[in-house]
Amino acid sequence: MPVTYPIVGMVGGGQLARMTHQAGIPLGIRFRLLAASADESAAQAVADTVLGDEKALGDLRTFAQPCAVVTFDHEHVPTEHLRALEADGIAVRPGPDALVHAQDKGVMRERLAEIGIPCPRNRIVADPADVAAFADEVGGWPVVLKTVRGGYDGKGVWVVGDTEAAAAPFRAGVPVLAEEKVDFARELAANVVRSPHGQAVAYPVVESIQEDGVCREVIAPAPDLSEERAVEAQRIALRIAGELDVTGHLAVELFETRDGRILVNELAMRPHNSGHWTIDGAVTSQFENHLRAVLDLPLGDPRARAKWTVMVNVLGGDYPDMYPAYLHVMARDPGVKVHMYGKEVKPGRKVGHVTVCGDDLDDVRARANHAADYLRGSITE
Amino acid sequence: MPVTYPIVGMVGGGQLARMTHQAGIPLGIRFRLLAASADESAAQAVADTVLGDEKALGDLRTFAQPCAVVTFDHEHVPTEHLRALEADGIAVRPGPDALVHAQDKGVMRERLAEIGIPCPRNRIVADPADVAAFADEVGGWPVVLKTVRGGYDGKGVWVVGDTEAAAAPFRAGVPVLAEEKVDFARELAANVVRSPHGQAVAYPVVESIQEDGVCREVIAPAPDLSEERAVEAQRIALRIAGELDVTGHLAVELFETRDGRILVNELAMRPHNSGHWTIDGAVTSQFENHLRAVLDLPLGDPRARAKWTVMVNVLGGDYPDMYPAYLHVMARDPGVKVHMYGKEVKPGRKVGHVTVCGDDLDDVRARANHAADYLRGSITE
Repeated sequence: MPVTYPIVGMVGGGQLARMTHQAGIPLGIRFRLLAASADESAAQAVADTVLGDEKALGDLRTFAQPCAVVTFDHEHVPTEHLRALEADGIAVRPGPDALVHAQDKGVMRERLAEIGIPCPRNRIVADPADVAAFADEVGGWPVVLKTVRGGYDGKGVWVVGDTEAAAAPFRAGVPVLAEEKVDFARELAANVVRSPHGQAVAYPVVESIQEDGVCREVIAPAPDLSEERAVEAQRIALRIAGELDVTGHLAVELFETRDGRILVNELAMRPHNSGHWTIDGAVTSQFENHLRAVLDLPLGDPRARAKWTVMVNVLGGDYPDMYPAYLHVMARDPGVKVHMYGKEVKPGRKVGHVTVCGDDLDDVRARANHAADYLRGSITE
Repeated sequence: MPVTYPIVGMVGGGQLARMTHQAGIPLGIRFRLLAASADESAAQAVADTVLGDEKALGDLRTFAQPCAVVTFDHEHVPTEHLRALEADGIAVRPGPDALVHAQDKGVMRERLAEIGIPCPRNRIVADPADVAAFADEVGGWPVVLKTVRGGYDGKGVWVVGDTEAAAAPFRAGVPVLAEEKVDFARELAANVVRSPHGQAVAYPVVESIQEDGVCREVIAPAPDLSEERAVEAQRIALRIAGELDVTGHLAVELFETRDGRILVNELAMRPHNSGHWTIDGAVTSQFENHLRAVLDLPLGDPRARAKWTVMVNVLGGDYPDMYPAYLHVMARDPGVKVHMYGKEVKPGRKVGHVTVCGDDLDDVRARANHAADYLRGSITE
């Protein structure tokens, strides 16, 4: 009889599940996946894959039945289904009462205001005229509009400059949140992991560089960030994790404003792009710590292993097959760590990432950016 | 259409295949497994697992058909089957002409002698009386006897002190190799990886500490090993890899004698226990470099990431379930890296390993040994 370590179920077949499976192998646990198709990124790798629809309670139940705990690659499972799984006796982590704050930006903003976490000024807006009123309240256009549910990677987000442009977000028929357009110096992310026990660890605060609303590069730790500001960012993330009773990895995306404030931009309650650097760059990766947390195991050391770690996303370009580019990337730089997700290449889609660790930030950034650009096909030497 | 990166097939469902799968996930390749049962260590994790018998050519063919290359978790596939796969047009790496040196200790010793690699004195022996003659030739008993095929982890190896005891190895009916009992100061391992292109990388030379014929602990790099001796060991391994036309990872187990010589003990042409430290301790693990080599991709940086890395095997003890021990091991030391293989616990069986990296060798050794002993159940605090 083989050993029967607990089964962790993860809903969603994307790259986050793929990398969580990878982190689960050394832990000896069983990893079970609910994916929409056998071609999905994680389904290509995971032995115990159940094909089904995360919106169908029957499929969720079939998938969850043997699991010690169910967790998520994304935030798209309906709250009522999560409650049904809990009623079936399945541990759901993070639980529905926490997860709703990552699912609904309106609920998130309201709760963060209640507990005094600094956020951009915001409110739910009723129509374009109400957006114009909000613009007046915050000192003028442009204004950021977000559908409260369903957005990611810049989708579901608009930066609008007048009442006419403000009409678009309302067409989806979901509530719209207006936020002031923050004059930020840069974006940071504070990633923490918390277990049901209440143990928590904080990763070094990173700088995240976006391009067209999609993360391009993450630098760990954030350069020239004062100890004081870093601790402030970590405290904000730990406070949110505790107050919202988060289990697992919590990513808190932050604005660092030009006048020296830290404001919360977005939350994600799962492993997050801003934490991919931890696979190669930290003693314990975000994926391993997410698994430890949902299993209520003691958490692993979140500290960095190198002075600098830089992760650059590989976005889809013009070439459908990136494998031939491995030859040049790997021959040119034996230290670059390639992480490809097995996803079909589409322009702008995240299909992988590369990581480089080292002592010289300029060198590490140049190497990681070169590898990602070469894989994408935007440079040819 | 999902991307179709090459499929690497690995024969054998043990922990080496499990850890190779883990290393293959970031490379974006497809990993296909031939395992005897769905309960085997690697089969628990690998999506594309074919159940079958590695000794049956039909099963091997079904498994190998879609693979760009076939490689191995062990040395037990019959040479004639490997030649048949090659005749089918499948790349087999390492190839049968190389692999035979890891399958047959008689062939290995003959070939190493031809190319002038220092080995313990040895010859094939016909019967117990011939062993006694060999003992006379090398200066007396005890003598080491090995069946030329099928041994591992101390199985198929006898240290005998007289003619009577020398009878046992002959009972299996396979040829027996006699070797002088080397008065070694310690055991070392030189691990190298070589690609069909002829590119090769050498890992830092490690010290390997055995207990009852089974590896207990590996220290990277080998403490107090002179640069000169380390380079000599690496040159021996690189020379063997080149002369034998090895593709993939080659582990060369070595004796360092009290009189300052390096002698080759055993060869393995696959990822090897003496290289498990590289998962956490090197820029590129032996598993990733094995995959890169069999795919003829440029090899990754083999250098150590920490001053010291210590790996200790977790052997089966009296407790069938090691999972409860995670709580104490992880809470006591957030920096210990646990690697469990999903194997049933049997006394003395390798069921996992732990790794610790750091600057202070005594501290790193103590931490890794404590974690392994606690998981096994041989200490209780």
